[in-house]
Amino acid sequence: MITVTMSKPFLSLLTFSLLLFTSACLATRSEYDRLNQCQLDNINALEPDHRVESEAGLTETWNPNHPELRCAGVTLIRRTIDPNGLHLPSFSPSPQLIFIIQGKGVLGLTFPGCPETYEEPRSSQSRQESRQQQPDSHQKIRRFRKGDIIAIPSGIPYWTYNHGDEPLVAISLLDTSNIANQLDSTPRVFYLGGNPEVEFPETQEQQESHQQRYSLPVRRRGGQHQLEEESEEQNEGNSVLSGFSSEFLAETFNTDEDTAKRLRSPRDKRSQIVRVEGGLRIINPEEQEEEEEEQRSEQGNNGLEETICSAKIRENIAHPARADLYNPHAGRISIANSLTLPILRHLRLSAEYVRLYRNGIYAPHWNINANSLLYVIRGEGRVRIVNSQGDAVFDNKVRKGQLVVVPQNFVVAEQAGEEEGLEYVVFKTNDRAAVCHVQQVFRATPAEVLANAFGLRQRQVTELKVSGNRVPLVHPQSQSQSH
Amino acid sequence: MITVTMSKPFLSLLTFSLLLFTSACLATRSEYDRLNQCQLDNINALEPDHRVESEAGLTETWNPNHPELRCAGVTLIRRTIDPNGLHLPSFSPSPQLIFIIQGKGVLGLTFPGCPETYEEPRSSQSRQESRQQQPDSHQKIRRFRKGDIIAIPSGIPYWTYNHGDEPLVAISLLDTSNIANQLDSTPRVFYLGGNPEVEFPETQEQQESHQQRYSLPVRRRGGQHQLEEESEEQNEGNSVLSGFSSEFLAETFNTDEDTAKRLRSPRDKRSQIVRVEGGLRIINPEEQEEEEEEQRSEQGNNGLEETICSAKIRENIAHPARADLYNPHAGRISIANSLTLPILRHLRLSAEYVRLYRNGIYAPHWNINANSLLYVIRGEGRVRIVNSQGDAVFDNKVRKGQLVVVPQNFVVAEQAGEEEGLEYVVFKTNDRAAVCHVQQVFRATPAEVLANAFGLRQRQVTELKVSGNRVPLVHPQSQSQSH
Amino acid sequence: MITVTMSKPFLSLLTFSLLLFTSACLATRSEYDRLNQCQLDNINALEPDHRVESEAGLTETWNPNHPELRCAGVTLIRRTIDPNGLHLPSFSPSPQLIFIIQGKGVLGLTFPGCPETYEEPRSSQSRQESRQQQPDSHQKIRRFRKGDIIAIPSGIPYWTYNHGDEPLVAISLLDTSNIANQLDSTPRVFYLGGNPEVEFPETQEQQESHQQRYSLPVRRRGGQHQLEEESEEQNEGNSVLSGFSSEFLAETFNTDEDTAKRLRSPRDKRSQIVRVEGGLRIINPEEQEEEEEEQRSEQGNNGLEETICSAKIRENIAHPARADLYNPHAGRISIANSLTLPILRHLRLSAEYVRLYRNGIYAPHWNINANSLLYVIRGEGRVRIVNSQGDAVFDNKVRKGQLVVVPQNFVVAEQAGEEEGLEYVVFKTNDRAAVCHVQQVFRATPAEVLANAFGLRQRQVTELKVSGNRVPLVHPQSQSQSH
Repeated sequence: MITVTMSKPFLSLLTFSLLLFTSACLATRSEYDRLNQCQLDNINALEPDHRVESEAGLTETWNPNHPELRCAGVTLIRRTIDPNGLHLPSFSPSPQLIFIIQGKGVLGLTFPGCPETYEEPRSSQSRQESRQQQPDSHQKIRRFRKGDIIAIPSGIPYWTYNHGDEPLVAISLLDTSNIANQLDSTPRVFYLGGNPEVEFPETQEQQESHQQRYSLPVRRRGGQHQLEEESEEQNEGNSVLSGFSSEFLAETFNTDEDTAKRLRSPRDKRSQIVRVEGGLRIINPEEQEEEEEEQRSEQGNNGLEETICSAKIRENIAHPARADLYNPHAGRISIANSLTLPILRHLRLSAEYVRLYRNGIYAPHWNINANSLLYVIRGEGRVRIVNSQGDAVFDNKVRKGQLVVVPQNFVVAEQAGEEEGLEYVVFKTNDRAAVCHVQQVFRATPAEVLANAFGLRQRQVTELKVSGNRVPLVHPQSQSQSH
Repeated sequence: MITVTMSKPFLSLLTFSLLLFTSACLATRSEYDRLNQCQLDNINALEPDHRVESEAGLTETWNPNHPELRCAGVTLIRRTIDPNGLHLPSFSPSPQLIFIIQGKGVLGLTFPGCPETYEEPRSSQSRQESRQQQPDSHQKIRRFRKGDIIAIPSGIPYWTYNHGDEPLVAISLLDTSNIANQLDSTPRVFYLGGNPEVEFPETQEQQESHQQRYSLPVRRRGGQHQLEEESEEQNEGNSVLSGFSSEFLAETFNTDEDTAKRLRSPRDKRSQIVRVEGGLRIINPEEQEEEEEEQRSEQGNNGLEETICSAKIRENIAHPARADLYNPHAGRISIANSLTLPILRHLRLSAEYVRLYRNGIYAPHWNINANSLLYVIRGEGRVRIVNSQGDAVFDNKVRKGQLVVVPQNFVVAEQAGEEEGLEYVVFKTNDRAAVCHVQQVFRATPAEVLANAFGLRQRQVTELKVSGNRVPLVHPQSQSQSH
Repeated sequence: MITVTMSKPFLSLLTFSLLLFTSACLATRSEYDRLNQCQLDNINALEPDHRVESEAGLTETWNPNHPELRCAGVTLIRRTIDPNGLHLPSFSPSPQLIFIIQGKGVLGLTFPGCPETYEEPRSSQSRQESRQQQPDSHQKIRRFRKGDIIAIPSGIPYWTYNHGDEPLVAISLLDTSNIANQLDSTPRVFYLGGNPEVEFPETQEQQESHQQRYSLPVRRRGGQHQLEEESEEQNEGNSVLSGFSSEFLAETFNTDEDTAKRLRSPRDKRSQIVRVEGGLRIINPEEQEEEEEEQRSEQGNNGLEETICSAKIRENIAHPARADLYNPHAGRISIANSLTLPILRHLRLSAEYVRLYRNGIYAPHWNINANSLLYVIRGEGRVRIVNSQGDAVFDNKVRKGQLVVVPQNFVVAEQAGEEEGLEYVVFKTNDRAAVCHVQQVFRATPAEVLANAFGLRQRQVTELKVSGNRVPLVHPQSQSQSH
């Protein structure tokens, strides 16, 4: 054996290498988890991880790296838009499903290839300061209100405006694992204009540490055409138009230099939700009620084939009259899927609105063909989720603002609290999501099979099959009363 | 240079860290393989890796981590159910295709939203011990027998019962990479009741070592509602109902405490296949033959649109009269796809039954749009598989009970042995799987092109194109006789 | 503290282990990148990485491991076929879209299950050396020429022949991430015959190093049936037929030993593109012009349902009369998608041909539902691409032969050079790829919203919405002239 003499630098190198490997291998482990991404021993209720404050609102996002969200292949955004606030035009390669928790607003999409079929109403009279010779035209503006589900296809830019008196609150699902998203599973929101702040810093940081590691040149590249000034320009602004030089934008859109510079909005401090001073005048409050009436009657025409240009993109699922399942003692459930809102066929998404009254139970069931994301709107209750090994991976109270992921086929049951009811929306990653209730399996299975499977006596099986409601909404007291 | 003094603990830490990295990085390598999962230099014939013995049968599974199975994105289960054995209701997020190798039985599915259209025949007369006031009703019971292909959609619970005199043997494909499975590629079987043993211990162990590594709390969590007793309850039982407390089950299903406890079946030792003492009485042997006749005539109605509630889920493909390709000297092939069994369109799966007579050859061919899984039912033979580089990745004898994966576009040829024929079923991961035969390419290609491609003389090309059968089933002797 | 004595072997082991981990973890890192495969800080214009020279042509391929190509999930092949050159029959599990850059030729596919509907014209008269008794029959031969897009479904074998006077140049997209490819993302080309050289050595090397690491037996396996001679045979040849023994081929195809040996082509030095001495006689130059005429008139029948056997697989998109967007000052664009060429619905691919005149601009736009691959055919220009963070990830000159990947939703603008125009083809990974133009968003959005989003005055918004062409093809000079 030899007494070793090791140079200190060598030892440091060794230690340093180890540190290096640690970080590399940790990356590995996270990948390992990703590929076994639904082996969830434990599901947590998730609240937003990050917030971006804007001039006229707030954007809160969930970190897409939560194991639960990686399993479901989605992430979520909650936006609060102040009265007269305008959420700037943006688009995403992932389809989005938005539920309006509170307030009312208008929304404009640009469907490519569709005509501008709306002219601004009475523009010449109501706006004498306008110097334009011809009335302004644009694509359809769509009103929405609390309880609406809104479908935004991938790549379609849309803007939103709060024309009500209270904050507009919306929760959006971004289905990053949707077949329509041909990029990786990182959530991406492209803002056409403005100077938005980063909404998913987790994915951003990853990228930056990655850049540092390889020290790749970012942003400061370009051919010989590129002037020093342009290169500087490109360091500012986060909208897609800020990525082009103002010279090029002026040339392309045939505008003056000042307009082009404003299109790039490099130093705009208002972020993604901006205030409209005095409000948007195109929204005429008098016409509003009538139009809403009209829209509601329109809702009946779903069966007919629609062109994408006039496609209905919203449906109210919170209104009591809209309930698909109802028990006066326990609660009600409404479903929006591609049968009620055909555009959902393209998005491969659907939604469910559930309201449980005090102590009301949504009996054990599972989604046969979808992952589901339960977001609590109001009240409190308890949720139980069981995996394929019979383990209760979630058995906790939930409250307003929390998100719970229920993976495909995991068995779930919800119960409202004793003091207040429970109101939640469920996003589902299938446009024809279907649910199987344990109670229904009991009914559909011959009594003899049940008796042998569970070691029950005939009387017990009969009780199991016959008692209880057909509706999987149960109220403990009411039931024992009615029998 | 400095003589280093290293503390012993530091050194151990170093060594320990290295060990840690080793395991982390090995995980990596397996992931690396996964992403290049079809670079198979070598394909092996696979036999089941694991067995679970139950009261009235046997479950054998293939380890889904075999490179061949990871490439195909599937795994398999072989179940043997004794006479009067009942395989408990279960469901899986992956669609399943089952082939009945031996025996006969009945099967019940629960299609959610479908009515209970069957009443138990003559229940009042044949069963005087029954105290129920009203006859038992349930969803349709379906009979099946040797040679049937049965389709089970994802998330749909089903039970199976052997009402014959010999063991019922079935081989099932679980298509974990199917678009219908929105979880990861781990095979999962959810048992509604009973106390099943783990069927895929490989994926289980992975999970447990994972748990240990992070020491996450498992099973023993829950809000303040949860009593100590419940927590203990949750440590037992592997069915999904065992994940709920008996108190909650009693409340939800409006049953007494004893029934609720039995639903959780925590200490049931019978495992997933249980014995029905005296047999199921709902299966009337006298009616059986008639019904089978009926079912067969029903088979003609495939072209018509069906609702899912009355969908046909089975088709017999082993009967000689059902052959789609036939050579009296070499063998026969039958195909079940979404044209013959429309429900397969939803499963995106199809199957082929092949019977080769002694020395019969199924000439070289490839699956243009599917991976295929060849399972040998009876006899012995030889299979050759060639990859894109012209390497014979498999060239071996195969025997009863072996599974061979043939990846998409890999060229394959089968030949029955000299002493007995070869009988096998092929599962394919496409509901309209199509095959291209080398012989057909010869016929479809102009003689001049073949002559130039292979350096053949005109006479040789003519011989190649004209000789041989149209059917890709060849018998060496018979052919040379007929010419 | 203890003075440590470390044995030298232990230290070496430690160092060696570290080296081992380095390589393992590097593999990891590349996987890490793969799963975040579209976090592209920087996009590069790509030229072919590898070339295979054959007797009568050249095959050039792009390394599929470029981050840009991994993001898009595709790779490309450029083939140059000399006059009288024949590209041997091959097939791939990934669907292919081919654009003919130069020259003209014929092509034969084998659609399985389709009849041989062509008899060789006047074979008895024009070819007295032919000794065949009956005329040769084969599936339809299809002519093509410069500007054609050709669709090859997955698994379908096809051959190509240059019957013109100049080299035939074609660029092919292989969509390895297409749902039709059920293997991993490695590009694979299976040659039926000949002795092709490896076209994607990068994936090959990976495999070989992998083999070495595990020292798996390759090629030299097989059951007891296998003679020593066969085993040697299998070491030669890269076509799929070379993977079978000549004895087995003779038996199966009922041919003599010499024919069988030639089918295996083990020592063919001509590689994948071979010379046809004297040219293919089945191509009658006199009939050619007429037929082309016919084919063009045929093009109108797209709306009708076609069987796959007679499906049209090509469409000319370069002809000026075919333009879908046109500005006489700036350029023209033609689109081939599943509405104009129905077979593309099965391939889930489409293509665009763009010709920009000198200084012409294709204004900023994005692909809402597809990744796109821009290949420069002729001329030079500049391309700008902006990601979701507003960074210009590409802003460079491009020239003939370069490939630029534009990921889904990334905003892109092209401009032809000052001295010559720019001509390029764009492959898109969606059969109904749709584009949204920034200019159209301006028009579709109410003036007030634009004014508030960008801080523009009313006059500037009006200018932005009204000025410029409807067509997103812009010529800076011509526009300022016309206004």
